[in-house]
Amino acid sequence: MPVDVDRVRQAANAEAVTRIVRAEPVLIDVARAGDVVPGMDAHTILTSGAPLHWPDYTGGQRRAVLFGAVYEGLAPDPSAAEKAIRSGRIRVRSTQQHACIGSVAGVYTASMPVFVVRNENHGNVAFCNLYEGESRHRLNYGSYGEEVIASLHWLEETMAPVLARALRKTGPMPLKPLISRALRLGDELHSRNTAATLLWGRELTPAFLDLAGEGDSSTAAVREVVEFLAHNEYTFLRLSMAAAKAAADAAHGIRYSSVLTGMALNSREFAIRVSGLPDDWFRGAHPRLEGRFFDGFTEDDVEWIGGESCVTETVGLGGFAQACAPTLQAYQGGSAAAMCAANEAMYGITVAEHPDLLMPTLDFRGTPVGIDLFAVLRTGVVPVIDGGLAGRDGGQIGAGVLRPELDCFAGAAEAYLQQYPSAPH
Amino acid sequence: MPVDVDRVRQAANAEAVTRIVRAEPVLIDVARAGDVVPGMDAHTILTSGAPLHWPDYTGGQRRAVLFGAVYEGLAPDPSAAEKAIRSGRIRVRSTQQHACIGSVAGVYTASMPVFVVRNENHGNVAFCNLYEGESRHRLNYGSYGEEVIASLHWLEETMAPVLARALRKTGPMPLKPLISRALRLGDELHSRNTAATLLWGRELTPAFLDLAGEGDSSTAAVREVVEFLAHNEYTFLRLSMAAAKAAADAAHGIRYSSVLTGMALNSREFAIRVSGLPDDWFRGAHPRLEGRFFDGFTEDDVEWIGGESCVTETVGLGGFAQACAPTLQAYQGGSAAAMCAANEAMYGITVAEHPDLLMPTLDFRGTPVGIDLFAVLRTGVVPVIDGGLAGRDGGQIGAGVLRPELDCFAGAAEAYLQQYPSAPH
Repeated sequence: MPVDVDRVRQAANAEAVTRIVRAEPVLIDVARAGDVVPGMDAHTILTSGAPLHWPDYTGGQRRAVLFGAVYEGLAPDPSAAEKAIRSGRIRVRSTQQHACIGSVAGVYTASMPVFVVRNENHGNVAFCNLYEGESRHRLNYGSYGEEVIASLHWLEETMAPVLARALRKTGPMPLKPLISRALRLGDELHSRNTAATLLWGRELTPAFLDLAGEGDSSTAAVREVVEFLAHNEYTFLRLSMAAAKAAADAAHGIRYSSVLTGMALNSREFAIRVSGLPDDWFRGAHPRLEGRFFDGFTEDDVEWIGGESCVTETVGLGGFAQACAPTLQAYQGGSAAAMCAANEAMYGITVAEHPDLLMPTLDFRGTPVGIDLFAVLRTGVVPVIDGGLAGRDGGQIGAGVLRPELDCFAGAAEAYLQQYPSAPH
Repeated sequence: MPVDVDRVRQAANAEAVTRIVRAEPVLIDVARAGDVVPGMDAHTILTSGAPLHWPDYTGGQRRAVLFGAVYEGLAPDPSAAEKAIRSGRIRVRSTQQHACIGSVAGVYTASMPVFVVRNENHGNVAFCNLYEGESRHRLNYGSYGEEVIASLHWLEETMAPVLARALRKTGPMPLKPLISRALRLGDELHSRNTAATLLWGRELTPAFLDLAGEGDSSTAAVREVVEFLAHNEYTFLRLSMAAAKAAADAAHGIRYSSVLTGMALNSREFAIRVSGLPDDWFRGAHPRLEGRFFDGFTEDDVEWIGGESCVTETVGLGGFAQACAPTLQAYQGGSAAAMCAANEAMYGITVAEHPDLLMPTLDFRGTPVGIDLFAVLRTGVVPVIDGGLAGRDGGQIGAGVLRPELDCFAGAAEAYLQQYPSAPH
């Protein structure tokens, strides 16, 4: 008897989206990447996007990896780092090959601290490294220099130890309640994380009070962390990304499912990952872009240097919840009505409405979740992605809305039909 | 030469609204009402609304005043308090006669702590006492008993001293930046204060860390306050009210101005105050009500027991900013679209758009501010007021939207035309 592939695929997609929406991401630790990320060693550097061979990384992403090697002390300068990579002494890998998720260039080295987020409902763990702060110049935007180095050292030496000690006092911290509440407070958890950062800071405050009582050096460090949280309202993004990665990974590898479990940029391509095609990334052109720019920069200054924060869109956040965050107009352009319309269009390409992520602006409708590859191709509607924009000379130069081209979806569909020959399309 | 009253009134209204929008309310202290409220003595009890003679207070508001006298130790029980009031030993006054502003019954006694808010731009000071917490049973909702007494004592003995000490460390705290930001985070600062409470708590956190280092009893008290702030997201309302009162009072008493500088409920009436008619309240029927009720209560259970939190609407917050707070649907009913429409209708009865209070949902339009008595009468559009609802047997039983009747506006217009005979209408 032939398989009714349409029905099988629907069931598989229902299972995939169920795993996404039932994920229970819990922050359990802040630790050194080299100590906790599987397969990471002292000579590994991770970077965003579908994996490339080293010669294929270009521009700011390539520079960011080399800067990472220098920061880690694996090479004295970028050209020595280049040689060490070519010789194999330094290994460059994709974040996603290690349950990590990268913001923009997404460079991880072994000594960098990472959030450790366990999906209590599925048992898998995901990681994200820490936000460098509101400076336009950050390693994840391809910048390097004294300011960048100082920020990264401060994260290692002050932020991470304080957070780790605080978490030992609070115990594991469920992230979904914070994310769900933040949607009612004007965040969409990709380009706006103000409320989530506030809520998270409030959860940590009792532990900070404890730590402040444990001696002067402790008090000074806690004070610096409190100060950082008050001035860096993007901080929670890395937790939102780790939580999203933990949910998306749980839905990956379900036979017949055409639900996306990842979207990612590298310097060459936009790529998608599909649950039922677990071994591949499907690659295409970089997205179209509607941006708003800082300081007189223009679209011509944009450079693609990687980015995986669109994992948030994959699980029903970011662009898929932008109706919650009308304030983003000021950051990335658009109007409140256009943002609602863009958000609502996503119901046409998704499998479900999120039972726990409700949008007050849309009368508490659940966010659209579970992007179906075939729905994208059938409708021509592509995912809407909020995101920051990097400049050719390093640094963030603006923010905007990204819309992928259809080519990677077409490639994925072709692979799907080869893998599951009688699948309808 | 005859006065061109229309032009004079427009200029007067422009001045009134300028004083409202340019107000710079700053939290300078938390202190005992008896120590700081002008004209308040140990035997004074304040309550919400246009002043009434004692025999005219009814129901829950009357009970709340008597409970206040018992709480303060001015009488052993409500009937003894009743006698003391009739004899003149206890004096019952309207909050507004003392630069105070009352939430619901709005009972103040001398030992209760108050926020002290100075309008730096005009020099005037306003006061509001503290939120009792999220229990349905609070003195300001006409309830009394062990739970209410314990809450009030805790505010006096723990909350107020900690806040006062924290403020000495932070220095005077400007409230407008917090209010303005909270509008971008889903508050309207009357029935929703979640974000403002979070932001205020964040401002206080460095001072709390200092206090926590000053010995064990201090640490315990700070911990209780942090806990209270985390669980009582209405806390900031009292600051929003004091800030609004400080702004409205600055605009009061401008000859020829027909801008409202107060709206208030007592157990008998809804009343308005008009800038150019500084000595009177204009009284009318209680508002119409669209409510959402807790626990099976219905509209029949509602009792009017006073309320002046609608001072927030007078300065362009609350119902006049409800487009910012679609989450309020769950609390007080309506839909996101209806809330935007109700908000936008207020532009038809106001003099200006607030330059500092911007609404992301309405593409950063300023909130409508400066209610013009004559615009209300000309259009028949009445102010929309968000608010909590009290039950006949005490306690909060729901929340809703209030719409005043036109009678008090008609009365005010009549008085205006007597005072300024050639004024157009």
